[in-house]
Amino acid sequence: MKFTINREEFLKGLNITARAIASKSVTPALSNFKIDLDETGLYLTGSNNNLTIKTMIPYKDEQKEIIRNYKEGTTLINAKILTEIARRVDSVELSLDVIDSSTAIIGDGKSEFKLNCIRSDEYPDIDLEPDGQFLSLNSADFITMIDQTAFAASTKEQRPILTTINFEAHDGKLTATATDSARMARKTLNIEQGVEFIANISARMLVEVTHLIDNVQTVDMTVSENKILFSLGKTVVSTRLSSGDYPNTKNIVPRNLNYVLQVNAQEMIKAIERVSLLSIERENVVNLSMSDDGIEVSSKSSQIGSASERISSYRYEGQRLEVSFNNEFVLAAIRALGSVDVTLAFVGEMKPFVVKNDKDDSVIQVITPMRTF
Amino acid sequence: MKFTINREEFLKGLNITARAIASKSVTPALSNFKIDLDETGLYLTGSNNNLTIKTMIPYKDEQKEIIRNYKEGTTLINAKILTEIARRVDSVELSLDVIDSSTAIIGDGKSEFKLNCIRSDEYPDIDLEPDGQFLSLNSADFITMIDQTAFAASTKEQRPILTTINFEAHDGKLTATATDSARMARKTLNIEQGVEFIANISARMLVEVTHLIDNVQTVDMTVSENKILFSLGKTVVSTRLSSGDYPNTKNIVPRNLNYVLQVNAQEMIKAIERVSLLSIERENVVNLSMSDDGIEVSSKSSQIGSASERISSYRYEGQRLEVSFNNEFVLAAIRALGSVDVTLAFVGEMKPFVVKNDKDDSVIQVITPMRTF
Repeated sequence: MKFTINREEFLKGLNITARAIASKSVTPALSNFKIDLDETGLYLTGSNNNLTIKTMIPYKDEQKEIIRNYKEGTTLINAKILTEIARRVDSVELSLDVIDSSTAIIGDGKSEFKLNCIRSDEYPDIDLEPDGQFLSLNSADFITMIDQTAFAASTKEQRPILTTINFEAHDGKLTATATDSARMARKTLNIEQGVEFIANISARMLVEVTHLIDNVQTVDMTVSENKILFSLGKTVVSTRLSSGDYPNTKNIVPRNLNYVLQVNAQEMIKAIERVSLLSIERENVVNLSMSDDGIEVSSKSSQIGSASERISSYRYEGQRLEVSFNNEFVLAAIRALGSVDVTLAFVGEMKPFVVKNDKDDSVIQVITPMRTF
Repeated sequence: MKFTINREEFLKGLNITARAIASKSVTPALSNFKIDLDETGLYLTGSNNNLTIKTMIPYKDEQKEIIRNYKEGTTLINAKILTEIARRVDSVELSLDVIDSSTAIIGDGKSEFKLNCIRSDEYPDIDLEPDGQFLSLNSADFITMIDQTAFAASTKEQRPILTTINFEAHDGKLTATATDSARMARKTLNIEQGVEFIANISARMLVEVTHLIDNVQTVDMTVSENKILFSLGKTVVSTRLSSGDYPNTKNIVPRNLNYVLQVNAQEMIKAIERVSLLSIERENVVNLSMSDDGIEVSSKSSQIGSASERISSYRYEGQRLEVSFNNEFVLAAIRALGSVDVTLAFVGEMKPFVVKNDKDDSVIQVITPMRTF
């Protein structure tokens, strides 16, 4: 195999594919890019077993020649080194020439790199064929869905199922749910009727997928029994579904919300951030006090002191109520809504409460308060 | 003590002073700012015992009122928390009121922080009186002097004296020398006759001092037996001198430089950076091969491969020579010169070599080559 390629386009492809490659891999072949050149274009594949990314660089893009002086073939080359070469060289084009099964020469006429390479048949077989239920989403909707839920998934591996986002396609709706058991985020999108599946997908992988979306209008998903495939223009991403049942979250959203506070999102965020300064010692606990007299957020540290701030513009319905919560949970929930105003609604002091945007019922956040005694 | 202060000016002063405060301190009082308000202005002091910074904020700066509604006094307040408060609050002014010897109230009318504070007499006595030999340097010259030498000091504590820069004022010259024993950097400035001292000062502290230089034309140094004091406009910095003798570096700069290579600094830097990609395994060794045939930098890794690059524009005088070196040392030396062209001059394969700028003999870099067999 050999080719001369536009360096920028090559680097773009390498950077996309490198996202799937782990810094350390138990399977040595997976520290490489798989590079295939056939009559349709150049294919770059990277994988860490759980996540596989394959992207295509065509010979020509409209008028622009991208690949020239080529001979078809396939090889494996160290991903980190090849990406760094393409990044550090400053020429317009880069040439790659596999001179025998174990050596590739990469150069731009000025620098020359002789890299050890490996035969492609040492790469694991990875199935990237679409298979199963098909669903096409608007890219922006997909990104919003992940942004509004992924942060609420657990980052701890004790209960692996909680590190996933639970997707349920049913009855013309796609519902995404994430919970780390102390909070929950849920987003619903309308989809076409007839698509039915349940899939638990690593939240971290889904965030990776959103980072790969670049200049494409739609995200095409194909869900089979053990994998989900995302098609994003010239890039295909495959990730394994997590096994195990997702906990039942149907009844987590509380009813009988007797205390309802509406505030400006930015004012609330800034006030919580400021009083949080004094909550470092005590697990980030911030107190919210609501009554006819006004709304105040506060925090306390026995060693350092205390902080309080009154919220100036709000609407509150309900009796006097004091609630304590993890500041990070409430900040993340408010930010995820992305709205000008937010509503915090409560059943009582120690019951899970709701953070939502009254103008958008497609998304809801539920947070468990903290005990402060 | 109480005062209302322009928040931006206050924060600027806190940030300057905070540079001296360690994140963890054996002396609890030193995790605080010492704050003194007298008839001349507000003084903020921070210290980690080795380095002390004291800065002054005046009541008025030309037309602008900075401090108002005040009562003189002194207190100690947690440095990290106070800096964060001044940063996160978004009002124009901030008020601080020490209501009794153990509580200060800080607020902007919206947020209110009650902080525990400590009586000022618990702060260690720190001598900031100028005393000893006086020397005034142009700020830009001082910064250049530190930039061109500090990187060559050791960062390891095994031989503490090598973590310092050795200053010698003698016979109308100030010479700064730094060495980690594998390389040396030396810079000389002309100064007035009659100033005579030898002082070893932590390279890290000196870099801190350069960061504090802001809008002042001169750096005034006062060197006594055990400390050096820098006066930078409204800020005074004091640091202890290191005890112990600096190694004799007088004869380190080699003579009989029979091999002389002149190259463009940027081309050389880029070439070394690129071939360094393959030098990761082998202690960053890069090879430089020089002869009438041309100049080539290269590196090799048994596992990954090899890299080479020819330098296109150069002047070389001498026989064929091959030298191996630590890429970081040569890159740092070339960058420190800050010149368009650099000269690398050699005695022989395994002898220390010189990196210099032919147009500026005030600075010289010496590097020991590496064995590659």
